[in-house]
Amino acid sequence: MPDITDIEAAARRLEGRALRTPLLSSPFLDEIAGRRVFVKAECLQHTGSFKFRGAWSAVSALDPDTRAKGVIAFSSGNHAQGVALAARLHGIASVIIMPSDAPKMKIENTRALGAEVVLYDRANEDRDAIGAQLAAARGLTLIKPYDDHMVIAGQGSTGLEIAEQAVAEGITKADVLVCCGGGGLTAGIALALESRSTGLRPRPVEPAGFDDVTRSLATGTRQHNATHSGSLCDAIVTPTPGEITLPILARLCGPGIVITDEEALRAMALAWSRLKIVLEPGGAAALAAALFHAEQIATPDVICVASGGNVDPEVFARAMATLA
Amino acid sequence: MPDITDIEAAARRLEGRALRTPLLSSPFLDEIAGRRVFVKAECLQHTGSFKFRGAWSAVSALDPDTRAKGVIAFSSGNHAQGVALAARLHGIASVIIMPSDAPKMKIENTRALGAEVVLYDRANEDRDAIGAQLAAARGLTLIKPYDDHMVIAGQGSTGLEIAEQAVAEGITKADVLVCCGGGGLTAGIALALESRSTGLRPRPVEPAGFDDVTRSLATGTRQHNATHSGSLCDAIVTPTPGEITLPILARLCGPGIVITDEEALRAMALAWSRLKIVLEPGGAAALAAALFHAEQIATPDVICVASGGNVDPEVFARAMATLA
Repeated sequence: MPDITDIEAAARRLEGRALRTPLLSSPFLDEIAGRRVFVKAECLQHTGSFKFRGAWSAVSALDPDTRAKGVIAFSSGNHAQGVALAARLHGIASVIIMPSDAPKMKIENTRALGAEVVLYDRANEDRDAIGAQLAAARGLTLIKPYDDHMVIAGQGSTGLEIAEQAVAEGITKADVLVCCGGGGLTAGIALALESRSTGLRPRPVEPAGFDDVTRSLATGTRQHNATHSGSLCDAIVTPTPGEITLPILARLCGPGIVITDEEALRAMALAWSRLKIVLEPGGAAALAAALFHAEQIATPDVICVASGGNVDPEVFARAMATLA
Repeated sequence: MPDITDIEAAARRLEGRALRTPLLSSPFLDEIAGRRVFVKAECLQHTGSFKFRGAWSAVSALDPDTRAKGVIAFSSGNHAQGVALAARLHGIASVIIMPSDAPKMKIENTRALGAEVVLYDRANEDRDAIGAQLAAARGLTLIKPYDDHMVIAGQGSTGLEIAEQAVAEGITKADVLVCCGGGGLTAGIALALESRSTGLRPRPVEPAGFDDVTRSLATGTRQHNATHSGSLCDAIVTPTPGEITLPILARLCGPGIVITDEEALRAMALAWSRLKIVLEPGGAAALAAALFHAEQIATPDVICVASGGNVDPEVFARAMATLA
């Protein structure tokens, strides 16, 4: 299990590489939530999501000979772009295995960041077999999206920044709401806060129907989602919590909060009008929880991690329509 | 004329009050511009534009007895909100004189920030007379939008941050493009850079048809715009350069750059997709210059100040339509 020493080491490797994202606020959001709301704008991170932190942490931690052979990842989204950019900045090759029906823009962006994109047919091809064959043939190292020591340590650097920024803002007691898929970001932040800021308690936020972490925490046993797709919050839809992440979440997190797609869209619109940031539905989940589920929060202040902003114009237009 | 000492003093008064906005970048924007592009995201500042800096600087510099009587400002836009919030945070009254045909949302926001909004009829009422009467009756101090020593000093704090952030990014020689209306932000940044970073040269950016500063710099004499409205970049449309600001700009700035409304809309869309920030047309002018007038820039890197993000959904939708 990664610990604070790993997170501190990852933060040092990320120094000057990852953006120290700002903690934003607006009196208009405070009024809706009935308390002070602070938003850690990780959508401003390189590649538009926090994923660059974990990818850089993992790639930079490889021994140089291993790293020189290149890396491989499975992802249709934010992790793909994070790994592609981390590889490019290290001057090494990256291969990203993506479903052929992934959004065209995400495929193009991943290619434009220098990755070799290998498409597979979800219905008829075995993603893992394709990846294993490529990795073996070329000596590529797999960078997992969340169930990886170094990836969790990298995401934890977000938590170190939150702890420092909370002091600067005079925040002493707050729930820290984190958009949660496999749990890498939530676990990293939880470990950082455990060590640095005992008044800040992490809580996962998930979309309705994909609340495997919330239910796992509530029942004390690993839960699975009934389906694997069907939420606008695609960035945080995973079948079940990670093997490494779940014990960390169970030990350190408060109860999960579940939001609807409609609430995510409304939070995106308010982030647009009040904070001037662009969020994707999955990246707006934590803010949606702060704004529309305030009754589940008891702390005087709340911090929301806005985890990503890679959204198609069509979905963004749906969010904007909620302003009318 | 304000100097670096005034700017440093304003920056100290702004410490912990103004957001230290990040310097953003994207390899996709670098590719369009043909050089490294850095964006100072002042749209993330409190009230959605840099105007809060100057307003806070001016209000906080008043002697306490004068300040306690309240402040007054004329503005239909960003300065209004900056003054309203600065006054509220000081616990004093603010009166904002706005045209009755100003966008409803801006009137509502200014009221919601605690200001007393006084509407006047542009066609039949004398704004200055209304303001003078109110100010005299209640002892209010006028906070001008740009032609004010303390306001310029406050905007200059943006330049101090740019100088520090440039060092962190390894930027040694760059044009600093600034969206320019009356010239308060540009003058403040110019004074800060003169003292702190000789490799960084400020340059004003203006919309076509409203390029009074660009023409004033080129001719060496004060120029006026032919009309007072008709640009999407309403935030940076002013009749002529400020009395205090023009001599500073003439001494320290490189040539102005003129952009079109269409270019501003395209820059807004790229800021949305590549940087995950929300810009208004006038706030996107500098980025538009970097992306679409690269031939007028000779430095290896360019820094653009993204000065504001207070835009109506309808105008934003026009920007998004340029992505199709």
